[in-house]
Amino acid sequence: MTQGNRGMSFEAIIDLTNQRYDRLNLAVVNKRATPVKVLRITNGRITSGYYEQPSTVDYDGLIPGGRAIVFEAKSVASLSRFDLKNLKDHQVDYLLKCHKMDGIAFLLVEFVKQNKIYLLPYTALRYYWTAYKAKKGSSSISITDFEIHAYEVPKTRVPVDYLSVVNKLWQATGS
Amino acid sequence: MTQGNRGMSFEAIIDLTNQRYDRLNLAVVNKRATPVKVLRITNGRITSGYYEQPSTVDYDGLIPGGRAIVFEAKSVASLSRFDLKNLKDHQVDYLLKCHKMDGIAFLLVEFVKQNKIYLLPYTALRYYWTAYKAKKGSSSISITDFEIHAYEVPKTRVPVDYLSVVNKLWQATGS
Repeated sequence: MTQGNRGMSFEAIIDLTNQRYDRLNLAVVNKRATPVKVLRITNGRITSGYYEQPSTVDYDGLIPGGRAIVFEAKSVASLSRFDLKNLKDHQVDYLLKCHKMDGIAFLLVEFVKQNKIYLLPYTALRYYWTAYKAKKGSSSISITDFEIHAYEVPKTRVPVDYLSVVNKLWQATGS
Repeated sequence: MTQGNRGMSFEAIIDLTNQRYDRLNLAVVNKRATPVKVLRITNGRITSGYYEQPSTVDYDGLIPGGRAIVFEAKSVASLSRFDLKNLKDHQVDYLLKCHKMDGIAFLLVEFVKQNKIYLLPYTALRYYWTAYKAKKGSSSISITDFEIHAYEVPKTRVPVDYLSVVNKLWQATGS
């Protein structure tokens, strides 16, 4: 990300990215709200409610050609590894479902200390996740592994230009 | 819809439809929650908050091949016309954005009294909406117009089998 965006939360930078993609007609991607069960409204204010379990991932939308795109975004503050416990089963399951439908499914990980953002396609994530769940693999993915199996997201005219990676990976191969 | 589903809200029937599509691997479609700005949480309960303005439509997802699908669903309880004031600008704008990206965008309207459900593609909706907004057209779309310009959604193995229409319309022509 550019210097000006440092200090912004990863979520805020992605929101900014999505606004820019929208304005440039490059993609329509939205953040999914966590569903809230509202129990009581008083004078137009919610005065009682609770968070329901979300069933999907943080971001979804579509790119030109109408292809659907879904991803989960995570930020790693101080380490040089991504702990898999930060992902929830329902998130990985949802990425799988969309991948099987031929949607574009991935994980976006920000390593704050290293000032790097990586796009990890679902197919690569699956490898680590399956081993982790079977207790046969590591409980984290190191930044070195990201360097090898993920794709660094460049800083271009948009703060986190993940579409440049998407276009290179999915549009070229159709995978 | 089948007799057994009569009396269920349109939303509940669509949710049931989407669950069935999911189980049959025909589509992955979710309801979008209205975002809630949470101001205070006390003992795990939301005790202060408010609804934020939603920026998209009610339902979105993808179908095999990875193509994105977005739609707004409305139920007409007692009349034989759909009042366009029931649609919000941001909803029609969002359908347009997705249509321009080559996503599958439409309106699903239930006429309860007539026991009929129609799928109105965005391109047809646009015609009525533009005239309405320019105050040059009717403020509603009659069920007769739906019979001509929309597609009746059949009752099959799923309660509201809108995908059968989608497949016929979008997959065949690629429009």
